[in-house]
Amino acid sequence: MTESDLPVANLTPGRWGNPAQSVELPAAARDALKHLGVRRPTPPAEAGEESGHPGAEPAPEAGGAGSAVGAGGARSAAAGGAGLGVTAGQLEFLSSVVGSQHVALEWEARWGHTRGYSTTDLLRFRAGDTDDVPDAVVYPGTHDEVQAILAGAAEHDLAVVPYAGGTSVVGGLAPTRRFITLDLRRLDQLEELDEISRTATLQAGVRGPVAEALLAERGYTLGHFPQSYEGASIGGYAAARSSGQSSAGYGRFDQMVVALTIATPRGTIQLGRAPMSAAGPDLRQLILGSEGAFGIITSVVVRIRPRPTERHFEGWRFDDFDSGLTAVRRLAQDGPLPTVLRLSDEVETAVNLADPDVLGGGSGGVLAIIGFDGPYNQATADVLTASGGTNLGEGPGETWRLGRYRAPYLRDPLLDEGALVETLETATFWSRVPALKAAVTQALVDALSTTPPLVLCHISHVYETGASLYFTVICAQTDDPITQWRTAKAAANKAIAEAGATISHHHGIGTDHRAAYTAEIGPLALEALHAVKQTLDPHNVMNPGILLPEIQRLS
Amino acid sequence: MTESDLPVANLTPGRWGNPAQSVELPAAARDALKHLGVRRPTPPAEAGEESGHPGAEPAPEAGGAGSAVGAGGARSAAAGGAGLGVTAGQLEFLSSVVGSQHVALEWEARWGHTRGYSTTDLLRFRAGDTDDVPDAVVYPGTHDEVQAILAGAAEHDLAVVPYAGGTSVVGGLAPTRRFITLDLRRLDQLEELDEISRTATLQAGVRGPVAEALLAERGYTLGHFPQSYEGASIGGYAAARSSGQSSAGYGRFDQMVVALTIATPRGTIQLGRAPMSAAGPDLRQLILGSEGAFGIITSVVVRIRPRPTERHFEGWRFDDFDSGLTAVRRLAQDGPLPTVLRLSDEVETAVNLADPDVLGGGSGGVLAIIGFDGPYNQATADVLTASGGTNLGEGPGETWRLGRYRAPYLRDPLLDEGALVETLETATFWSRVPALKAAVTQALVDALSTTPPLVLCHISHVYETGASLYFTVICAQTDDPITQWRTAKAAANKAIAEAGATISHHHGIGTDHRAAYTAEIGPLALEALHAVKQTLDPHNVMNPGILLPEIQRLS
Repeated sequence: MTESDLPVANLTPGRWGNPAQSVELPAAARDALKHLGVRRPTPPAEAGEESGHPGAEPAPEAGGAGSAVGAGGARSAAAGGAGLGVTAGQLEFLSSVVGSQHVALEWEARWGHTRGYSTTDLLRFRAGDTDDVPDAVVYPGTHDEVQAILAGAAEHDLAVVPYAGGTSVVGGLAPTRRFITLDLRRLDQLEELDEISRTATLQAGVRGPVAEALLAERGYTLGHFPQSYEGASIGGYAAARSSGQSSAGYGRFDQMVVALTIATPRGTIQLGRAPMSAAGPDLRQLILGSEGAFGIITSVVVRIRPRPTERHFEGWRFDDFDSGLTAVRRLAQDGPLPTVLRLSDEVETAVNLADPDVLGGGSGGVLAIIGFDGPYNQATADVLTASGGTNLGEGPGETWRLGRYRAPYLRDPLLDEGALVETLETATFWSRVPALKAAVTQALVDALSTTPPLVLCHISHVYETGASLYFTVICAQTDDPITQWRTAKAAANKAIAEAGATISHHHGIGTDHRAAYTAEIGPLALEALHAVKQTLDPHNVMNPGILLPEIQRLS
Repeated sequence: MTESDLPVANLTPGRWGNPAQSVELPAAARDALKHLGVRRPTPPAEAGEESGHPGAEPAPEAGGAGSAVGAGGARSAAAGGAGLGVTAGQLEFLSSVVGSQHVALEWEARWGHTRGYSTTDLLRFRAGDTDDVPDAVVYPGTHDEVQAILAGAAEHDLAVVPYAGGTSVVGGLAPTRRFITLDLRRLDQLEELDEISRTATLQAGVRGPVAEALLAERGYTLGHFPQSYEGASIGGYAAARSSGQSSAGYGRFDQMVVALTIATPRGTIQLGRAPMSAAGPDLRQLILGSEGAFGIITSVVVRIRPRPTERHFEGWRFDDFDSGLTAVRRLAQDGPLPTVLRLSDEVETAVNLADPDVLGGGSGGVLAIIGFDGPYNQATADVLTASGGTNLGEGPGETWRLGRYRAPYLRDPLLDEGALVETLETATFWSRVPALKAAVTQALVDALSTTPPLVLCHISHVYETGASLYFTVICAQTDDPITQWRTAKAAANKAIAEAGATISHHHGIGTDHRAAYTAEIGPLALEALHAVKQTLDPHNVMNPGILLPEIQRLS
């Protein structure tokens, strides 16, 4: 199966991806979990399923503020109590814009658009927590329909959350007040392909595999393959500054965007008349990363490249993380860069490789994965060899390729077994990488001392001046795994801030990183961002509480 | 002389660069001007010099609003009338921050910080136009001094223009009300060099050649060589999104900046904890290009590279601009890119080359310049050959290298002779380049029909998805060359806008492009920018009228 054949995913609320591709834990993993003290929780996580779905629909409440309806022609409308569902006036407004058949009020649709895929999100799904359920799911079909909904949202007292892949792992879909969801899946077109300029205009709801399939028909690729690829969408990539596994070769998504269109409550903005410009600040970069707080990106023009006719992936062994770090830095600074460049540390190497012999025998060592879109580049291999690397051939590379989107699937059975597993990531300049890695690892170990964790780390995105660090944490769940993780995450965030690093390299801010973000940019820059939001979204209907906290004006 | 040996320039108000390097027109050029109908103006442009300096100091006015002073210990203070010079209270404030020896009130200092180097600026200098003269020139020595002046500016009724190289060609130094200039030349330090991360922290007042010299001592280069290189500064590069002649290899200046510090009237903002981040919008890109309208960038952390030990420049011939265009696009999209990549059109090739034989005989043809920092890359040459190019060897390359900063010097004797000469530039996506080039050329020819112009064009900055176009216009001056150029420029701006291109690829907005800029980004984005300015500079003391017009809030 090629990447463009991957099915559109995220089909089961609260479990990652396509159920047809769910995985079982290897027996070796079960044994390893025992060493971490992991025990299968009782009652089992599936408790909620006894009522037919993980989150039970709340009973209607009496005396609510609004008159909630399930009528008005909306499809399969389920009766909702006040506090759930929309009012007759809201429904009439939404239906007038998109047609009643494109407004879903039934519980299943709403529950299926609840939160994202952080471990905390999954744990709350498992607990049947019905907070953060949208009042309605609306499916606009055009930019103008999105624009019309946002323009009328304040008048109809609607807060709006944009949704396509739903793959946020930082609480990006859980605003601070009741809301409706705009599911952008009908914005699924490749609007234009300019072969001379090598640009494609893609609508926001196009998911990763669909984008690749549409471009492949014309002989092109976007080259953006984040771990959320199967489910995430073009609009989400843009709004959250996504970075994919081929970033060494293709760059980040925000580097691919040359133009964009955003609908805001005050109107539409179109940006990008050239690849680069000196016409004032680069406002594209103000919209990219705005996470729906200013409006909804409805389409982007992205740089595309000819689809490669060959690909190569191989593994390389280094004696330790430090020597591997020097090697990948050398490639990042002096080239030639491969398309994929990843370096696992000792712990991640040991955990991920069932067969230690793959490292060529001997104890220790770390694994790097190198990939080329197009011909194999011997010059890259020469740099790795000169840096102390040993070529392990295509075996480990193919193993990685086949499993490149599988890790999130593993989290579900791990949670089933009673393990706590979550990831976090950051970035910094090269000279600070070792201290940052040590500090974050120590913070996690200390915070989880009662359930000693495994802390895995890898580098997967490199630049001339620095790199990202991606951590995976595995330990036994306590009786309150949500608090357990929040405590550990807070400790990691503190370590990241104290190391002078950024709170996120590619996951974004959402609600989980909001406090860390405000500390990172400082009160005055935050106020400037807030002024932008106040201009574009004066009634705070867009993703309220996501990205930006409510702030007081500085004196 | 190597580039790092170049003297700091801009020493004569109203004439470009270092007087020791001024140039005379070749005899052939004088003949060519005759064909354009160019006549030496009478009275000669030097009229103003009869009073000892080009702009005569206005006589003190009676009954002015403020009590202007020349005392208070400021160096060589000249008496200024109301409407010129600062009040005693302003002087006391400024002196209390930077020391009275760092506040200049004398006419020569103020006249020497007047406007920039557009042709219109030069013509106004020649006419002795004393508008836009700052009331004082202040030389802060630290970020904290800059911050203190901006924080107190509103209270002391001071508008502030930052200044280092003074090389704006878009009216970036001529605000809409009386002002003082902050000359940043004392912020001239390389604060830090991180060899592991390959970053350097440079203060805003470091000029191009000084930056290169400081980095060269450590074995590094910034690689930023705009035509304003001799005079322009690090802070100006950042504030105006500069792009240099080696942009194909080193990128734009805004791509080199990984962190920055900006002083604003409301406080200091520091941005950039990693090369790239998903922590919200990239706010660095909101400051880069803000042209002093939000505050003053006092230092930047830039990516640096090892200084090359060899350089190669050579000329290539293509049959016509279109075939050359295909060749440079191929390199931009599929590589390998050289460090310098420039393509002149037929007219520019003919005008710039005194000896047509350099193109290998035969009529017509266009010249491309290719440069490599480091070893010669045969693969690049192979692409050019395969695209129909003929290698002309190092002769034309060396000619270009030796003259790479000379073109602006030529403008002064051309103006002396009565020619009108000016440049403008834009950028667009590849598929639109031919139509854009034709439309701008036609607009200029039509607007200057009574003084038929030569319109030269080249491509000097390329990206995967598009390129910049740089136009040079030469014709005879009318009796009112300022109006003559403004009319032509307005026609070119209109053509750029109608072609969907950007109003500037690397010159910036200033005051000259303000109207075109507001049309380019639209009223809502403009309002968002205005909200940022209102937050950071609530009393509009920073570069008033530059970049942003006063706007009404949209209903």
